[in-house]
Amino acid sequence: MRRLSLNQKTTNRWGVDEAVDGCVRAGLEAIGLWREPVHDAGVARAAELVHDAGLRVSSLCRGGFLTAREGPARRQTIDDNRRAIDEAVELGTTCLVMVVGGLPEGDRDLAGARQRVADGIAELAPYARERGVRLALEPMHPLYCADRGVLSTLGQALDIAEQHPADTVGVVVDTFHVWWDPEIERQIARARGRIASFQVCDWITPFPGDALLSRGMMGDGHIDFRYLRRLVDDAGYDGDIEVEIFNAELWATNPDDVVALMKQRYAEYVLDAGQSPAP
Amino acid sequence: MRRLSLNQKTTNRWGVDEAVDGCVRAGLEAIGLWREPVHDAGVARAAELVHDAGLRVSSLCRGGFLTAREGPARRQTIDDNRRAIDEAVELGTTCLVMVVGGLPEGDRDLAGARQRVADGIAELAPYARERGVRLALEPMHPLYCADRGVLSTLGQALDIAEQHPADTVGVVVDTFHVWWDPEIERQIARARGRIASFQVCDWITPFPGDALLSRGMMGDGHIDFRYLRRLVDDAGYDGDIEVEIFNAELWATNPDDVVALMKQRYAEYVLDAGQSPAP
Repeated sequence: MRRLSLNQKTTNRWGVDEAVDGCVRAGLEAIGLWREPVHDAGVARAAELVHDAGLRVSSLCRGGFLTAREGPARRQTIDDNRRAIDEAVELGTTCLVMVVGGLPEGDRDLAGARQRVADGIAELAPYARERGVRLALEPMHPLYCADRGVLSTLGQALDIAEQHPADTVGVVVDTFHVWWDPEIERQIARARGRIASFQVCDWITPFPGDALLSRGMMGDGHIDFRYLRRLVDDAGYDGDIEVEIFNAELWATNPDDVVALMKQRYAEYVLDAGQSPAP
Repeated sequence: MRRLSLNQKTTNRWGVDEAVDGCVRAGLEAIGLWREPVHDAGVARAAELVHDAGLRVSSLCRGGFLTAREGPARRQTIDDNRRAIDEAVELGTTCLVMVVGGLPEGDRDLAGARQRVADGIAELAPYARERGVRLALEPMHPLYCADRGVLSTLGQALDIAEQHPADTVGVVVDTFHVWWDPEIERQIARARGRIASFQVCDWITPFPGDALLSRGMMGDGHIDFRYLRRLVDDAGYDGDIEVEIFNAELWATNPDDVVALMKQRYAEYVLDAGQSPAP
């Protein structure tokens, strides 16, 4: 239970202050932050809140969106990624989650977009390295290939990450995004030393109407979390386990109740039997 | 244009008789049939209709659903697949499209479900072989992994197909299902001699509310059809190119208009410039 981290998106209506308080009330030791609510609170104030509460920041979401062709918009994005790296430093986390972006408007050249992601990471890596921040490439479910993330498999993310030192460019293993992948055992083993974040949430059916809000609480869907957690364990990952759920129904629920349910389901579906501590 | 085939699902409200007439009116030479409307018409009558109209049957959809654990339900499915093979023979097509099925209710053992697909194909292959029918394994977009098709990549489908003669077990390359796959060039090349069907439709955004009806007309979305068609060409495939679109808006449109649009978009987005004949 000590590795369990609340990703802020799971309790989307909480600001940083409320989420920090909620974690403390629930006895959690870690939190995953998002830049928008951090900006709302002010970066320095957000850093102070998590520090004073004694919480680890397991990750900062998100940098990325690196698929635009060269030009002013791409330059702006690169600058914004540098700011995100600085914010990660200020918040005390080494893990900046990178959502790499979809195809540019009207553009069908998928291979080109993927190459520009690799190029963007290469451009940002030295800046991240100097500041001790690791760019954590998040392969996304192929559902999002067109409009959110052109990296569709862990293997593909590793192909890019391996061009850089392991503590500069890593990968995110998010059960929702990777559970279907027939290569997953081999690729998680290959990711040894590069797993920057392990995130859990479920794949539920019938598929909710909004693709972005289609994730479910562990146990409500089809994913074998224990199996994937053991693969990640076997690859040497011993960091925090974040619960990140985009779901309209959960967002409409009292956030303290969501956190309580999250703890219960984490013990029931993610931990091995016997690992679950007394509540 | 001679290779263009209307998959019945694209004009979902047409029965076999209407779809056959519609193909003839539009000057098409091939049609992809579905078992339900074929049963509605009667298999013998459907066979007579396509034969009298001089149409090729490019495929019959669908066999499959082979993920159930051993027991009476699985035996029924195997029997039903044998009937589907017989129907393919009667309709004059060698291509039976196999939608392999999702996870059984409440079952999270994805590897086990995938193994049962391989076992089911091995059980059906001799029956198909004796009758000259090819089981065409359709890898499906990972979006459908939980509830429709546990084969998520072309590579995975080929792993199973290659355990059998190439004219007994083949694969379907459907642009909607495979366009995102970073391995697609290598896997289509590997599929040489096993491509039983090439189907086209587009990936559109924003993602429609119903996952099953999320496909779009070529040109309305993000897929580079010409690129994928050339890969399939280079792998030696010279059979029909089926347009199969599940889309509520198209289904509400006059089917003759849908067919006309399909021909136009096929010329514009799938064929090379200069390949398009005079209308």
